[in-house]
Amino acid sequence: MASEFDLIYRHLASFGAGPSVILGVGDDAASLRVRDGHELLVSTDTLVEDRHFPVGTLPEHIAYRAVATAVSDLAAMAAKPIAMTLALTLPEADDLWMHGFSMGLASAVSDFGIPLVGGDLTRGPLCVSVTVMGECPAGFAVRRSGARVGDRLCVTGTLGDAAAGLLLIQGTSDLSELPDIDTMEYLEHRFYRPAPALMWCDWLRTHATSAIDVSDGLLADVTHIAHASGVGIEISARALPLSEPLASLQALDPIALALHGGDDYELAFTVPPGTELPAGLHCIGTVVDGDGVICIDIATTGVSGYDHFR
Amino acid sequence: MASEFDLIYRHLASFGAGPSVILGVGDDAASLRVRDGHELLVSTDTLVEDRHFPVGTLPEHIAYRAVATAVSDLAAMAAKPIAMTLALTLPEADDLWMHGFSMGLASAVSDFGIPLVGGDLTRGPLCVSVTVMGECPAGFAVRRSGARVGDRLCVTGTLGDAAAGLLLIQGTSDLSELPDIDTMEYLEHRFYRPAPALMWCDWLRTHATSAIDVSDGLLADVTHIAHASGVGIEISARALPLSEPLASLQALDPIALALHGGDDYELAFTVPPGTELPAGLHCIGTVVDGDGVICIDIATTGVSGYDHFR
Repeated sequence: MASEFDLIYRHLASFGAGPSVILGVGDDAASLRVRDGHELLVSTDTLVEDRHFPVGTLPEHIAYRAVATAVSDLAAMAAKPIAMTLALTLPEADDLWMHGFSMGLASAVSDFGIPLVGGDLTRGPLCVSVTVMGECPAGFAVRRSGARVGDRLCVTGTLGDAAAGLLLIQGTSDLSELPDIDTMEYLEHRFYRPAPALMWCDWLRTHATSAIDVSDGLLADVTHIAHASGVGIEISARALPLSEPLASLQALDPIALALHGGDDYELAFTVPPGTELPAGLHCIGTVVDGDGVICIDIATTGVSGYDHFR
Repeated sequence: MASEFDLIYRHLASFGAGPSVILGVGDDAASLRVRDGHELLVSTDTLVEDRHFPVGTLPEHIAYRAVATAVSDLAAMAAKPIAMTLALTLPEADDLWMHGFSMGLASAVSDFGIPLVGGDLTRGPLCVSVTVMGECPAGFAVRRSGARVGDRLCVTGTLGDAAAGLLLIQGTSDLSELPDIDTMEYLEHRFYRPAPALMWCDWLRTHATSAIDVSDGLLADVTHIAHASGVGIEISARALPLSEPLASLQALDPIALALHGGDDYELAFTVPPGTELPAGLHCIGTVVDGDGVICIDIATTGVSGYDHFR
């Protein structure tokens, strides 16, 4: 690889320490310790410019978002991160760009406690691929397939924020005037800096019967749970948790964004009926006999045109 | 992702079974079993079109080569493959291309015993990134840093073949006429279908003090061992093992290709003096006091212009 990458490579190597890391960046492979009695969870996510983030996105956001979206897959299995590798392809080794990217990477390493133990830096069209590894007590990973009739469908956090943020970033919202700066910043931050629901890992492992992260949109992702579990799921549009900033922008159709907008990286999960939910978790539906996902209460929300959910 | 990928995704899922796989493709993350008393080895390799393989390379070769080069990093640590994930970006979901790619992937899965447990398929410029995971008894991974003065430097297999193959594929060799078809096929096969030295894993774990795979060229890669181990290494140009097909093409300068050409994915490794080498392994040098790598016996090989090795 070009020598201009050497510096950054050494920089990345400094992100490589952690309790599960035996050997980080710098040999043919990294070496990790998976604790006895634990299983290893692995997921790979790729971000491509102009597809997963707008052209012109700051490199610190690209790096952070790439790691966050991958870590979110671990959170969805109730697994805790132990390490990651990065495959970064970029057109030229621009020092300023790499500096920004490194800053974003450093934030993610620190925020999610996931050391970077290997990478491959290549010249080519901008493409970021992150493989995350996590661990979880053997047999306790939460899958998509465990939802049972009668279970409640719940979510962490609020929905639709990231999709609204992306509309604002791209300047494609229908708003006649831009929201105030705090609202703008909050929503854009939700897109650029997803917060994987790692704080709920232990709780989910004890209580959840199934889980998935909301990356493609609530309806699409909950449909995966329904299919994998062989059940139907009713979502109540009225129960969808909205943030105050998003709720303040009715012209953006917050309920539609909460149902369809992806990129929130909250978790949707099911729990047995009667499970007490701690603050921060919201019940939004019920697992029923049938297949697929039905959205109820739409009429009362003022949103129209959702008959095709049935 | 586009629905045309659904079919191939199901196809890939069929490559996902193996003794270490608890859960393969289809959930948020795959789940793997790392045996108690073992460490987990991880490496990521990216192949970009026109950089790591010529434009027009058959998709079956691209897939096979991507997996082989990544698995080679596990072999270099004396680790055995347990699973891999694939991040594939490609411009359009061409059925024929994907079929060929799948065939190459299937061959690699089978040849190296490495199930595919996760993947991310994205539309974008052609880019293939493979993350391989392997295991090895804890504390017995072979690193680059263990070479000691007096050790012998050895290699598996023959060197320079893949570099010669690439010259022939690209039509950039200086040959006045093309070699016979068997020679062509052998050398091109060595480029397209690298054979990671997994068969030597157990032997290396018992005997080798350091190891690396030859991907960038023997001199470049052995220099990594020298630096990591804080030693110098003398390579004897006369001792370099050449295949008969390559040795028959003196106009290609086989010794230079063996020293500089990458892509062979054989292993270079060191063993203590007196170690008996099984057939198939070749001693090509000695670990000495000093730093860097020196090539000796060059004058007697008829190759000139290598003073800069010193």
